[in-house]
Parts: sequence; structure tokens; C-alpha cells
Amino acid sequence: MAVGQGPTGPLLPVDGVSIGVCCAGIKKPNRRDLVVFQFVPGTRVAGVFTTNAFCAAPVQVAREHMSQAETRFWVVNTGNANAGTGARGLADARETCARLAALKGLEPEQALPFSTGVIGEYLPMETIANGLPNAIAALHPDNWEEAAHGILTTDTRPKGCSRQFEYQGETITVTGIAKGSGMIKPNMATMLAYVTTNASVAQPVLQELLKTANEGSFNRITVDSDTSTNDACMLAATGKTGLPEIDSTDSELYRHLLKTVSEVMLELAQAVVRDGEGATKFVEVAVDKAGSTEEALAVAYTIAHSPLVKTALTASDVNWGRILAAVGRSGLDNLDVDKIDIWLDDVQIVAGGERAPGYTEEAGSAVVSQEELTIRVILNRGNVSDQVWTTDLSHEYIRINAEYRT
Amino acid sequence: MAVGQGPTGPLLPVDGVSIGVCCAGIKKPNRRDLVVFQFVPGTRVAGVFTTNAFCAAPVQVAREHMSQAETRFWVVNTGNANAGTGARGLADARETCARLAALKGLEPEQALPFSTGVIGEYLPMETIANGLPNAIAALHPDNWEEAAHGILTTDTRPKGCSRQFEYQGETITVTGIAKGSGMIKPNMATMLAYVTTNASVAQPVLQELLKTANEGSFNRITVDSDTSTNDACMLAATGKTGLPEIDSTDSELYRHLLKTVSEVMLELAQAVVRDGEGATKFVEVAVDKAGSTEEALAVAYTIAHSPLVKTALTASDVNWGRILAAVGRSGLDNLDVDKIDIWLDDVQIVAGGERAPGYTEEAGSAVVSQEELTIRVILNRGNVSDQVWTTDLSHEYIRINAEYRT
Repeated sequence: MAVGQGPTGPLLPVDGVSIGVCCAGIKKPNRRDLVVFQFVPGTRVAGVFTTNAFCAAPVQVAREHMSQAETRFWVVNTGNANAGTGARGLADARETCARLAALKGLEPEQALPFSTGVIGEYLPMETIANGLPNAIAALHPDNWEEAAHGILTTDTRPKGCSRQFEYQGETITVTGIAKGSGMIKPNMATMLAYVTTNASVAQPVLQELLKTANEGSFNRITVDSDTSTNDACMLAATGKTGLPEIDSTDSELYRHLLKTVSEVMLELAQAVVRDGEGATKFVEVAVDKAGSTEEALAVAYTIAHSPLVKTALTASDVNWGRILAAVGRSGLDNLDVDKIDIWLDDVQIVAGGERAPGYTEEAGSAVVSQEELTIRVILNRGNVSDQVWTTDLSHEYIRINAEYRT
Repeated sequence: MAVGQGPTGPLLPVDGVSIGVCCAGIKKPNRRDLVVFQFVPGTRVAGVFTTNAFCAAPVQVAREHMSQAETRFWVVNTGNANAGTGARGLADARETCARLAALKGLEPEQALPFSTGVIGEYLPMETIANGLPNAIAALHPDNWEEAAHGILTTDTRPKGCSRQFEYQGETITVTGIAKGSGMIKPNMATMLAYVTTNASVAQPVLQELLKTANEGSFNRITVDSDTSTNDACMLAATGKTGLPEIDSTDSELYRHLLKTVSEVMLELAQAVVRDGEGATKFVEVAVDKAGSTEEALAVAYTIAHSPLVKTALTASDVNWGRILAAVGRSGLDNLDVDKIDIWLDDVQIVAGGERAPGYTEEAGSAVVSQEELTIRVILNRGNVSDQVWTTDLSHEYIRINAEYRT
């Protein structure tokens, strides 16, 4: 049921990154479910994580390990989120890192753990421990496609993106993969994205770069308003080019790299929405002339989360009253409804708070019948624009989520 | 698909109230779609209305007329919400009142208009004008059942409730009806409820009574988080008993009346949830030991609106991780997840933020397989309890809302 384009082009290897994937049998046999990323010494790593107060054990351990040692591994399992698992969950996440590190003669803190799947069940530790040597044995720079498959759960297709640019005779590569399909309303990052580059970037600068790129990508998407307990978006820079380290956000190379990482992350984030559970439409909800970013996002997310707007989209029914009602309940102070215009692509449906004079059902229906469209709300109370990306709400969403686990 | 009990017992007439219903043909022929309530002189009226900034024309006119004259009529049409209709919508709502008043030699401001149905289309004024004499001709005190049918839209059954109590030898009657099934997350009042009593109550006291009763009933329910543009909950007191007027909230009779009106409104509000679009479950979400009412409601509504919790309920699947994840993203400051307990009826599923020791899937499944259940979250950070009522999210919800209008 995914909408529009899949992953674009081949996923290019990044100098300094090797990936190993195996079928450990965590939830089902013969399914790629354990992925290990290995980085060369000197690699810098940044991460943004879920803001859900119930953050999963691996998120807590990843944060902790990042601050304690130079990261050499990311280890990702699917089939089990290791969330809501208390002290035992923390011990299991640490044990996963320790088992992996022991295989390579490193410290446990040099590995960061990530888990995705069902919440509230303990990790099958022996299964994971038995899989790790197989994943290590498979380590290879060209395994990005394998990894993109290995991190999926209810996703219907892998999500990956590569971009390159030249700078002073050197080629900078940015390659990333992501997974996510339901429980998607990231707040800091969506459920598992891994982006790497061969650029050389000081850690605080890398963290700032990730935060900025994340704000415009994973923090602007929603499928079902449910922020996951396991969201993590990671960025690694291996420093394998001949260029000097980027040690400030005020440099030309920083701006080039930020632009490219942002493009990769936006493509990954939109790929998550396109593969949103039951998605039959890919919808941009744009808000123009808002008084602030907060206002723009409040309106955009109220529309994007409205079950009535989402079901109307499923039916390719304009039903613009539902959009208007969502704007009206989005909580803006002193909202002057008589100033509001609403467009579907290039068709104006609302002018000054009521049906636009020249509007016809036919013109509106033609837009909402498309697989991709933009709902644009013009508030006329400021100069800020922002947008989020979302899906419709279909029978398939219900089927997937009423049947998952059963 | 409605859940559990329907309207209970006969709807008792209220001295001083007559009701006329007709099939005006607003949207479809031969469907009751126009309802007129007539009150005796001296009746006091209170109302609470939607907080949606896009409030419909009739809501604006009803508020205005209430402040200008003694109300003698409520006039309700279905099939058209007269919302998002700008200046013409306001003129149409006023015209409806004027036509009705002219038939009885009254002023237009003595009628309050209400509309429910599709947003964004103009009222068919001639159809309504032609129907009004028929509704007037049908006026009778025993038409409550007819009225309960006449205000419905996507509802699958009428909703009404009567209660009586004795006070100093007089019988006080409270009878109310309501409609609402989708676009239900009232904020002040849900889509159309009409409650009347023969008690005698000063207007400011009546307004206070309505606000209090509403807070515990219609302001505690949600079907789909979509606050309507047309919500209105009205209370009329005809003063036809021999008792003196209640002119203070500090009286025994006030407390009796508040209790009875609250009971009637809670039953009506719960009836709206039971008949929620596509509902297969009736769910109380209770939060105990919160730091404040705001905290309790933030947690309760985050759970009640979570598409993942709602779809798990549809599947009779406990999937308690989804409940826990919803608590975690509900925005409470410094939430200590290790203190949280969660129960399904009398089965504890989470203790101290993780799976309760004695919990079994069988015990949890037995509870969620029921048509009615309570999800109880104990935050252990204060002494405030509150609760909301909601439904699951089923295929039928999608079918109804993807097909409405098409």
C-alpha cells in the first residue's frame, strides 16, 4: 500500500562503515532481524532520541554509552522493542553490547543498542547472542540494501537514500536507511534512522548538524500521532576523506554537508510516511502566514491527526468542512476565521473562512483523487510558514493494527 | 454497532415544554429533520457551546439571541450544519428564527437556532420555511421520542433520559435528549443536547448548574478527537412547579437538581459514546493519583485518542505497551515511569512501569474481550482522579467516514 516512489538509486558504501546482517530468529525464522554497523576508529557519532517518557531500555543505554566511549558499533534487532522491561531490559541491552564487544575485543560501551518491535516482552538473549557472530562474519561495506531490509517491522519496503557532493577534489558521501510505518509521530526522531558520511566532523558540530537536519525531516512527519518509545536517529561521520575536520557550524563545508544530510533525511522521513501503515495517499499539510512556527505546526498537526480529515482523504472526498473544523480547534489564540484561505494544490476551496466563490466539487475532487497532494492553509496573521507530511487513514491501517501480534 | 444499553425507560413530559417534529425534506425525503421546542413564558434557558474557532452560524445566533430576549423556542434542523457559510449563513440562521417567530407572533430573538449535518453548504431556506408550520402544528408535550429521532444524523439510535425526584411534595422532572456519533471531542458541550426541567431556576444559577453538569459529562467524552463546529448543550427550566425560584447555588434544592441534571447528562453523554461511529467497545479511561485535573485529563485523552490503543481494543488485544507508550507521550513534566501502575478492570497489567509480575495474557484478554471495560492508570504523583469515556477504532468508523457524503 506504499505511496509513490520507493528508495531512489543504489545505496553507496561509505568509507569506514561495514555492515553485517543475519537471520537470528528473534521473532520468526529466516527473517533478517539483526544488523550490526561497524565504524573505523576516530568515527564521531551523534544521536537524537524519542521524547516519550517511557523510553525503551536500548535508548537509555545508547545515550549512556555514547557519553562514555568512542562508538565503534551500532547493533539493531527487530521483533522486540525491549521497552517497558524495567531493570531486566536495561541489563539485556547492556548484555547485547557486551557480547558484541567481546567478539571484537572492545569495551561494551563502544556499542550502541537499538531495538524495534513489540513492547513489553523481554529480549530473547540467547537467540541474539547466537546471532551476533553471524552478523559479525557478514560485515561488508556493500551491505546497505541488506541492512535496509534487516531493520524493518510492519514496513512494506526498505527505505534508503544516498547523496554525494564534491568539495576541494574530495567526494563526500552521505548514505542512510530508516524504518518506520506505524507509531509514527516522532518527537526528536522517528523510529530508527541510520545515516553515515565519510566527512570528518567534530562531535558537538555533528550533533548540531543532526539536530538541525532532524528538525526539518523526522520532526515534521506523522502517521498516527503515536510517538514511539524507541525512536532514534543516528548520524556517524567516519572522517575518511582527506579534508580537515569540520569544527564549526560557520564554515562552507558545514553548510554543504548540512544540506546533503538534510536532503537524505528528508527523503528517508518522507519514505516512512509513504510507507505509513495502510497509506493510500501522501499528503503535505502546509501552513502559511502563521504568527510563529508553533502556530503553524499546531494547525498542521491538528489537520494531519484528524481522523475525519484522514478518512475523507481515503475516500478521495474533499469534505473541506472537516479541514476547516480542524483549523478551528487547533488552539490558536484569537483566531480570525474570516481571514483564512485553504487550497488543495492549485484549487482554492476556502476564501475568507467560507467556500471560495469559484470553487467546484469537480475541481476539488480532481485534486484529492491524486495519490499525492498538498493541503495549504493560509492564516494571514504573520509571516511564518511550515509543513508536515502525513497519510490518510484507511481500512488497511485498522487491519494492520488490529491484527499485529494476534 | 452501538454498545450496551440504549435509552432507558420512557421519556417523561416536562410541564411547560411542547415539541413538534416534521419531515421537511432538508437532505432526504420522509426523514424527521426539523424539531421545534416551545416553552411557556417565564422559562429560563442556559447554554454551553463549542470552543471551535470556526463556530457555526446557528451557534453565533443562538448566543446572541439568548442575551437579547426571553427564549420561547429552540429550532433544530439536521442534514445541514450551516457552518463555514459566512454572512449568508448568519442571515439564514436569523431568517429561520424570524420565520418561526412570525408564525407565533413573537420576536425573532425569542427563538434559538441549531443545525447539524454537512459543513459548508447553505441552508435550503424554502424547504425549512415550508416545514416550520408543520412542526408548529405538531407541537405536543409527549413528543420527546419523536424529537430524539428528529435530531439524529449518523447516529444509529435515539438517545434520551428522564429522571424525577420529590421535593417538598412537588415532583421535579428532568428530561433530555442528545445526538452525536462522530466529530465527538466536545469542548464545552457535544453536538446537540437538550435538557429541560419544570424546576424554577434563576438564569445565572441555571447557567452555573449547566456548566457544572456539563464538565462531568459531555466534557469527558471523545470518539475521534474532532471537536465539532456546532456543539451545543442547552438546559431549559420552565418553573412550572409550585416551588420558589432557585436563586443561589447554595441551597438544598440546587444540589438535588444538580445531581439529577448531572445524572441525565452523564447518561446522554455516555449514550453518545456508546453510539460512537463504528464503536464495538465502551471504554472508561480513568487516571488516579494525578497531580492535577489537567494531568489526569492529559493522560486520559492521550490514551483515548491513540489510534494504536483504539485498534488494539477493536481486536480485543491487550497490547499494553501501546497504553504505556501513550502515557509516556502525554506531556507530563518529570513523569516518573517507575511509579506507574495500569489495570484493566481488576487485572493489573503494569506495576512500577513494567509488566506486572502475576499478569497473564489470558487474564488480560478476558477483560478486553468484553464490550465494556475500564483502563485505569495510577500515576502515584498526587491525589486527583478523573476519567473520560471513549470507543475503539474499527473498520466501521472508516467505512462511515469515508462514505459519508459520497
